[in-house]
This record gives sequence, structure tokens and C-alpha cells, in this order.
Amino acid sequence: MSAQPVSGPTAETAETAVSTVSTESAGPGVSTVDRSVGVTAPRGFRAAGIAAGIKESGNPDLALVVNDGPSDVAAGVFTENKVKAAPVLWSRQVLRQQRSRAVVLNSGGANACTGPEGFQDAHATAEKVAEVLGIGAIDVVVCSTGLIGERLPMPAVLSGVDSAAAALGDAAEDGLAAAVAVMTTDTRPKQAALRDPSGWTVGGMGKGAGMMAPSLATMLVVLTTDAVVEPETADAALRAASRVTFDRLDIDGSMSTNDTVLLLASGASGVRPSQEELAAALTAVSADLAAQMQADAEGVTKEITITVTGAASEADALTVARWVARDNLVKTALFGSDPNWGRIAAAAGAAPAELDPDRLDVTINGVLLCEGGAKAAERSAADLSGRHVTVHIGLGLGGGEATVLTTDLSHGYVEENSAYSS
Amino acid sequence: MSAQPVSGPTAETAETAVSTVSTESAGPGVSTVDRSVGVTAPRGFRAAGIAAGIKESGNPDLALVVNDGPSDVAAGVFTENKVKAAPVLWSRQVLRQQRSRAVVLNSGGANACTGPEGFQDAHATAEKVAEVLGIGAIDVVVCSTGLIGERLPMPAVLSGVDSAAAALGDAAEDGLAAAVAVMTTDTRPKQAALRDPSGWTVGGMGKGAGMMAPSLATMLVVLTTDAVVEPETADAALRAASRVTFDRLDIDGSMSTNDTVLLLASGASGVRPSQEELAAALTAVSADLAAQMQADAEGVTKEITITVTGAASEADALTVARWVARDNLVKTALFGSDPNWGRIAAAAGAAPAELDPDRLDVTINGVLLCEGGAKAAERSAADLSGRHVTVHIGLGLGGGEATVLTTDLSHGYVEENSAYSS
Repeated sequence: MSAQPVSGPTAETAETAVSTVSTESAGPGVSTVDRSVGVTAPRGFRAAGIAAGIKESGNPDLALVVNDGPSDVAAGVFTENKVKAAPVLWSRQVLRQQRSRAVVLNSGGANACTGPEGFQDAHATAEKVAEVLGIGAIDVVVCSTGLIGERLPMPAVLSGVDSAAAALGDAAEDGLAAAVAVMTTDTRPKQAALRDPSGWTVGGMGKGAGMMAPSLATMLVVLTTDAVVEPETADAALRAASRVTFDRLDIDGSMSTNDTVLLLASGASGVRPSQEELAAALTAVSADLAAQMQADAEGVTKEITITVTGAASEADALTVARWVARDNLVKTALFGSDPNWGRIAAAAGAAPAELDPDRLDVTINGVLLCEGGAKAAERSAADLSGRHVTVHIGLGLGGGEATVLTTDLSHGYVEENSAYSS
Repeated sequence: MSAQPVSGPTAETAETAVSTVSTESAGPGVSTVDRSVGVTAPRGFRAAGIAAGIKESGNPDLALVVNDGPSDVAAGVFTENKVKAAPVLWSRQVLRQQRSRAVVLNSGGANACTGPEGFQDAHATAEKVAEVLGIGAIDVVVCSTGLIGERLPMPAVLSGVDSAAAALGDAAEDGLAAAVAVMTTDTRPKQAALRDPSGWTVGGMGKGAGMMAPSLATMLVVLTTDAVVEPETADAALRAASRVTFDRLDIDGSMSTNDTVLLLASGASGVRPSQEELAAALTAVSADLAAQMQADAEGVTKEITITVTGAASEADALTVARWVARDNLVKTALFGSDPNWGRIAAAAGAAPAELDPDRLDVTINGVLLCEGGAKAAERSAADLSGRHVTVHIGLGLGGGEATVLTTDLSHGYVEENSAYSS
């Protein structure tokens, strides 16, 4: 880019934040996630992010990511909410053919609960993108995030598509501009990329927090790769990666109407990884994006990792971890830096999973506080003064284990979610 | 009472609060719930509440309710948490015989996650009550509330039983003293009674908020009646009443290790109501106690009633109502007096219940804001400035309906639950 460069305080914050982690860039032959680049890291992709006037603030609010091929394989994972936003209904149709050439994303409005007119708006947006790119509307995925129940300002959206198309570029700054344009309550753009030594790359950008159980901030993620991938491989690898990353980020247990995780594969590297190799790279980039979402969640003062081991099954481990992650009494205690393991035990015992109270162990930040369902050490032995808290719950029943990322319940969370409509 | 009168600011607050509602006393032949009396309203019961020194504050912390008969029929409902406090494990054994002569309750410690020693403490407390009253330990129900994971100070508990037994009385003030002694984060004691024109009475006291899904403040309830009741009738009527009252108070979705709802029947009136009559009276008193718990929930600034109609079944209606009641984004929006029906629609759509997004109606404080899944009026048409908020969700599928009471998620909630261990 850029005819319409990203500007203003949001973009400045963005570039500062990204530059602080750019030292993580991968050296030759080393596969390290690199946050200095995103969706344009793989070959065959262009991106743009511009201010279309959808947001009253005038901040960037429309992003475009284009796959120039040669391949146009695509896969997607969508919210399981029965109340699905119009762009989700549209994009599920697009992805049914397992191909897509472009994705257009807007912040400033969810286009959810907007009836048939809202669906027509999503369709019209896809038509407009198709027109300016010379492709078919059915090749265009649409994503939206923002307030539910209000129509989008379509003149702004449609002219924004023109501006974004004119700003498309394949540089790192173009990918970053797209990541900035999808921010809502996010304070930082979120992107990551991983280069495989054999010559193919996965890139990605995201906003919000939590798939299947996201915060108010709908989770939108676009992953790109220049690997050569069959549609079935793309779908399976994306689902495998999402299942253990975005699916296990649980900020407040709420589920958005708009969540979308998308994978676009250009094949431009000419390299064909195995499904396992692709899934591993997608998982690495997705895990990094999920960690960025956790770190930037609304009102977060503690980044909490909850691991359950010894469960009768992985499903049981995940259920117990989710129950604890969503428990407001646990979340407020951790906000108060209080290692209140009794609330953790109570939340675990309330989960619909197999649990023997006499085998329950709870360890907080490495200190075993509860063993066999009773006190093992004074709570003061665990130091929760830092930002990172690890909770380990041992069930002593079997080999099932799972980890969920969450955050605390703070005054900041209440403030952000009560003072503004979103 | 009272050798050890209730005193201090807690008791003063209590009596002021109660006096403000004593005008609700039932006139002759009118069955109105009366909050000026509680567990000693029916004949055949004595009660006491004293300061045993369990709480560091010196506030009242031990209550005793005694059924002098002639009948000793009893029934109980307990937490469904798999992690059950020692007094719950003990009291379930007591209630298996469907009879009880006395219940001893303490605040200042939950006696949960305390291992075999904690169970022995509960047993020893029952033995002590049995000794001073000249009954069997198996006739004594034990209830505790407070911090999980710490042993009770047993010398204080046991000498407190002596003091409470010496203070037992059948006056209104004795029932109130018992209600005061079980308070934890409650700011007001909670009691109610209903006199049936045919000559029998139901009384009750409670503390905390929420059965099966209670707040940090464990819910303990003791209901008394002088009706003549068979054990099976008592059990069925208690379950019927709890199911539509305490079970549908859902403050934060958390589930305590200690919840107990108990019914003691003395038969002293000589009147034998039908099961339906008994259930109706228990439901009236329980609904009033539940409303008092809602009004006094931690950090409450809004008392929210969520009603779902048109569901495929009552179970589905309850599931949707609970999902909305527990959604932190809904609760924070209502704290902010924001009629954000989009968050309500999203929470309803996430519930595991049958739902057609195109038939979804949402009405807030009487204003239809969402009809058929899309906007029906500007949100500003609904005024949420008052303390009471009613949310009506219409699913348009069938005849199932249910109502859940909840509260908002406020700074006060976060403060109470993060600044203090409880």
C-alpha cells in the first residue's frame, strides 16, 4: 500500500507493539513464529486495510485479503451459535465449494440479527469485491464484527471496497494494515507467520478473543499459506489446528454470532506438505494468535492457563478446564491475586465430568495447595502477584488432559462491557 | 432468647430492614407472606442465633433451630456439586431416615475440602447438639457456610452450641436471631412466613443466593411448618417448591459445595393439608426468600427477571433463560443500563436448546426491541434506569416457559469477590 495509509493513534500503537516482538523473526532453517509479518508473508497474497467510514471514530474499519493463486483452495470454521450473522450465512455457502479468492472484513458493525436485508448487504459486499477484482461473488468470503442488530452503512462499505482494492499490496505493511482494520476493542493488531525450512509459509491475522466461546470481541481469523494443498487436507488441518488453539481460548464463555476462522491456500510455493506438517504449522501460528488475543482480552490483568490432567477422557478434561475458566468466582479471586483453590475445587466439582473429590489435586503457580481434596499447604505459599497464573488440576482418574487459556474478571472487564454498546 | 443477645451493626441493620417490611403482615383470613417472622412462626419450633467466635469479626455465627414436635418429619435438598462439604455428607445421612429434631448452622467456615477430619467435625457438632438437647446425633442436621478448605475452630463451635441451646426461644426475635447468625456477605437477614387460614403455618429463613447455581454465598434455607405431614409428602412438596424458586435463582452460575434447603415439620397445628396445599405454601415462602436473596446479591444494582416463553419444552425454556442469566456480556450491559438485545439474542442462540433465529423476539421492560430475529425498535425506547429489569424472550416454537431471577455484573460484584477470600 498505500493510497490510503493507515494512520492515527490506533495504527501508531499497532506498529509500536509489533516492533517490540519483531526480534522473534525466524533465522534460516529455524521455524519460529514471527509477529512482524502476517497474511502477506506467504507468496500469492495481497492485503489492504483502510478507513471506510463505518466506524464513527474514523479508525480503519475495512480489510481485504486476496489470494492471487495459482490455487484458490479454502476452508473455514464458523460459530456454532444458532443465531448466525448474515456474513456467516453467506460465507458458509462460499466455503461449501472449498474455494475462495478473497475475503473482505469489516469492523464497526456485526451485521447480525439484521434479517433478509442484512443478508442482502453481505451479498452486495461480496458482489462489489467480485466486481473490482474481476472474480465471482461466490469466491468472496465476508466477515463482520461490531454491534449486533444494526444494518451496515452500505454506501461506506461499498466505496471502502474500492479504496481497499486500490490499496492492495503484498508487503508486510499491507498485511499489518489489514490486521489493524479489523480491530474493535482490541488494543493491538494481531498477526503471526511461520516459515517452513522446506520453502512454504503460513501467515495469519486475527482479532478478538475466543472461538466457540468468545468474548464480546468476535473472533475473526484469516490464515494464509503458499503451500500446495488439496481442499480436504486444508479443511482437516484447519479443524485440527483450531480445535487445540482458538477453541481452547475461553475469555468469558459467551459465544459470538460472527466467529470465523478462514484458511486460504495459494499454492505459490510449489511445495506440498503433508497434512500433519500443514496442521503443525497452522497450529503454531494459531496458538500464537490465540495467545495474543488472551494477552489483549478486555480488562485483562492476569493471563491464566488452566491445565487438567488425569481425567477419564480428553473431553472430560476439557469440560473441567472450561468450567473453571468460566467461573466468575475463580476469575474474580485471581483478579485479586488470591490463590483461592476452594473456588477452583467447587467449580471443578460442578462440571459435568467424572470427578472423585478425594483424588482432586490443585496446584497454583507450581505450589500444590490441595491434595486428595483437602488442604496441602497454606494459600499464601502461592505467589500470584505476577501477570501469568498457571492452574493445574489433577483428577487422578485416567490419561485425559487439556489446557484452556482464559483471563481474570476485573473492573476493567466490567467497565468495557457496561460503559459502551458493543 | 437471650443469654447472648444479637448485637452490633449487623443485627441493627437486620432489625431495621425487617421492620420496613413488617407492614406486609397477613390480616385475618388473608394469606400474605410476612417477613416480620420466620422459622418460629409455626408452632412447635424454637430457635437461637449467637456469636460463638467462629468469625473473627465477632458477629453472630451459630444458629440452632429445634423441632419440639410432636412430629419430627423432615426433608432436604442438597447441592449437586460432586465436591460436597462435610456437613452435606453428614446431613444426607440424617435425612435418609426422613426425620430430624434439630439443625445447627454456622457461618464463618464452610467445612468443605477438609477431608475425614472435617467429616468428624460435622459429626462432633451433631453429637454436641444431641447431648444438650437429649436426642440422638442422627436426628441433627448440620449446615456450614464460609471459606472452603479450612477446618472449623471446634472449641468455639462446641461451646457455641451450649450458648445457643441456652438461648433457644419460640418468639419472633429468636427466629430473627437465627437468620442473622447465618449471614456471610448478606447485608440483611432473610425470613418469611405464611399462615394458612385453616390453621397451619410455614416459616423460613435463608442466606445467600442460588440453589444448584449459587453465588459464592452458599444458599442455606430452613423451612418449618406445624402442618401434619407424611415424610413422602414433605419430600415431594419441598422438591416441587425448590424447583421453581431456589433452583431458578441464578446469580453467577457457580455451584456451592454446601447448599442445603431443609424442611422440618412439627405437626403441632394438628391440621393435615394436602400435598398441593403444602407445596403452594412452601413455594410462596421460598419465592419470597429467593427474591430477598436476589435483592441482596453481591454487588447487585439491577434485579433482573428473565422469562422465556414459546419454547419447545419447559426444559428448553429454562436452559435458554439460564444461558442468558449467566452471560457476562448481558449482565454487564444491564449493569450499564444498556438494553443491548443483541447480546441477549447471542446468548440465547448459544444455549443448547431448540431455537429458530427467525422467530426470536426480545422484549425489555415491556418494549419489543427484536422481532423475528431483527430490530423492531430503537434500543433507546427501553428505559433501564430503574433497579428492576424484565427480559422476555419469545421463541415461537411451543408452549414451554420458565423464569429465572438473576442480577447484573457490577463493579461491586468484582470488588466483593476479589478483595476478600470467601
